[in-house]
Amino acid sequence: MPVQFADRMSTVHRSFIREILKVTQDQSIISFAGGLPNPELFPVADLKAAAVDVMQEAGPQSMQYSTTEGFEPLRQYIADRYKKVKGIDVSADEILITSGSQQCLDLLGKVFLNSGDNVLIERPGYLGAIQSFSMFQSNFLTVGLEEDGPDLTELEKLLNENESKIFYAVTNFQNPSGLTYSPEKRQGVADLLRGRDILFVEDDPYGELRFMGESYQPVVRGYLKENGILLGSFSKVAAPGFRLGWMVCSGEMRDKMIIAKQASDLHTSTFAQRVIHRYVTDNSLDEHIEKIRARYGSQRDVMVKAIEAHFPEEVKVTRPEGGMFLWATLPESMSSMDLFDEAIKNKVAFVPGRPFYVDGSGENTFRLNFSNADEASIEEGIKRLGDGIKDFLSR
Amino acid sequence: MPVQFADRMSTVHRSFIREILKVTQDQSIISFAGGLPNPELFPVADLKAAAVDVMQEAGPQSMQYSTTEGFEPLRQYIADRYKKVKGIDVSADEILITSGSQQCLDLLGKVFLNSGDNVLIERPGYLGAIQSFSMFQSNFLTVGLEEDGPDLTELEKLLNENESKIFYAVTNFQNPSGLTYSPEKRQGVADLLRGRDILFVEDDPYGELRFMGESYQPVVRGYLKENGILLGSFSKVAAPGFRLGWMVCSGEMRDKMIIAKQASDLHTSTFAQRVIHRYVTDNSLDEHIEKIRARYGSQRDVMVKAIEAHFPEEVKVTRPEGGMFLWATLPESMSSMDLFDEAIKNKVAFVPGRPFYVDGSGENTFRLNFSNADEASIEEGIKRLGDGIKDFLSR
Repeated sequence: MPVQFADRMSTVHRSFIREILKVTQDQSIISFAGGLPNPELFPVADLKAAAVDVMQEAGPQSMQYSTTEGFEPLRQYIADRYKKVKGIDVSADEILITSGSQQCLDLLGKVFLNSGDNVLIERPGYLGAIQSFSMFQSNFLTVGLEEDGPDLTELEKLLNENESKIFYAVTNFQNPSGLTYSPEKRQGVADLLRGRDILFVEDDPYGELRFMGESYQPVVRGYLKENGILLGSFSKVAAPGFRLGWMVCSGEMRDKMIIAKQASDLHTSTFAQRVIHRYVTDNSLDEHIEKIRARYGSQRDVMVKAIEAHFPEEVKVTRPEGGMFLWATLPESMSSMDLFDEAIKNKVAFVPGRPFYVDGSGENTFRLNFSNADEASIEEGIKRLGDGIKDFLSR
Repeated sequence: MPVQFADRMSTVHRSFIREILKVTQDQSIISFAGGLPNPELFPVADLKAAAVDVMQEAGPQSMQYSTTEGFEPLRQYIADRYKKVKGIDVSADEILITSGSQQCLDLLGKVFLNSGDNVLIERPGYLGAIQSFSMFQSNFLTVGLEEDGPDLTELEKLLNENESKIFYAVTNFQNPSGLTYSPEKRQGVADLLRGRDILFVEDDPYGELRFMGESYQPVVRGYLKENGILLGSFSKVAAPGFRLGWMVCSGEMRDKMIIAKQASDLHTSTFAQRVIHRYVTDNSLDEHIEKIRARYGSQRDVMVKAIEAHFPEEVKVTRPEGGMFLWATLPESMSSMDLFDEAIKNKVAFVPGRPFYVDGSGENTFRLNFSNADEASIEEGIKRLGDGIKDFLSR
């Protein structure tokens, strides 16, 4: 007799995107479905030099068990960078190194969520967070995103009418929508949250990938001084294969996070932490990020221009100033799932929007990734997709 | 107002061992408290060569996101090694690569444990498992360990009188006791479990570290064909700092594990997986393990001999044929916590046994690690400890 699974497993499923990515393995398909950074930009030679140096100078230590909090010099580097880049005060003791920022979501669930607790997310929302919080049988509430951040009227109503443990948000170049909170919306969110028993979790993997316009301070510590947690990651500014993320939090909260992390995987790879630390110490991360910005910015421009040339006017598409994604909205009557099936026949792929909506809406939306396709493919793929949409609209 | 923590956090605490290890940071203390492999034995040069080769030959791929299951060639290597070393059939598709084998425990909890579910563990039991399952608010039942494995009469009674989801066991050179299940006990456990709705989770991080005597087949797949999961790790045979472990399981169970793993950290470091794969491909892991065996075996012999010379007869100590630990039992009336305080004054440390017992017993036991101290320190440390024990007994 098979052993019964836990209740939580009945509410979670294999990632829909994962299944879609399988379909797009076919090399003849131009795929805008993934969410991958461009591997041509990984600083392979510099990371190799860093790995060699670490092994030469601290071989045994870099391969031994280490503390759950993470490598202190790396935590100090991250803290210093917050001051330099974002202008906010963070100490090394407030950083917890995690196995990718995805692990932060799991630790947040462990430390804060009882079954049935409300979690407030954006609509559309980040799929990894939906998956992770679902494991804790949380109940999702959603606040709609406008061009410049969440609908504050809707947010206030949600906060007044429900008790939620966590409000999870991606404030810069959100996945999937590419949208960014304006300073006014940041201030508005902080004003609405202040004094309430709700934790604002601000995930910011894309913030440094800004191609144009100006950066804003994080809501946490910039606008909101209490009940905030910041998440960060080296995946988009260095390389995701090292699985290195972090969480900024302090006090008792951090103590609990360390307990949860210890029970989850003891600590994050000592070797990976030391190699990335060596890399950011011996090289200029700023210069490297400048290269990523230039490339992604140009890929984004090509995609936007192709969309203007090939998509019918009825399709609305966001124009993000950074990040990795564009977000498209078809006319109400159209299903992006139906379009997906058609698009695959035309050898082009994207991610239909519905999985990003926990309320079953979003049928007419889809996500386009521009970071991991060359410019010729972007031009050609968008043309194919535009033709497919036109076919649909003319039926 | 601070946000309320989840209920599960009220039952788990910072690792006791972690706190003890802080006390033993003092360089003048000879510590048998840790559970660390000897870093002098890490194959630094070979791992460095492997890292360089991976970065030269598959740089971008080794730094990109990858599949949740893990790097296929590494899974194939592990499957082949099971056949070669343990004589059991495992396919690459049954291996799930994890971020250390500690993560296997977290995934098991996620996939199987509802709050209040019974989990059967050994008495004494592995602390990492107690911590990890505690996060799922499990209720622990314990079966006592005899010299050759669990007390089968007690096990049968426990199985008859309670429904448990999981029986978690370390069958070779257990942490903390150093004890190993005999073939008869393996058969006995399998016979008792067969046909019941209970999952046997066999953790085997130390199995290959055998200094003398013969190895036995795992219970899972060797003696028990159903409802078994095997856990493994590169931490003790290569290096722990890469955080690479794995789980052997199949069918729907594996599908659920992949969902849980994806929600937990997406996947384990692509780079770490490829480096370890390259290392085991270009080098003989068998030869390397032979070096570890020789060194640990000799350290174990020195510790056993020193114990025979310096401990009073009333103290019983296990004589394991492998692994990293000895287990000591003081006379009933003595507390190893009290001895610990005294020992620290004499500049020697160990881990008191009580944390390994969820039922509050074990007051008179303690764990000694022999893998991470040189032979002169072992001789001197055991002498100091023996003197402390004699002082106590003469009071």
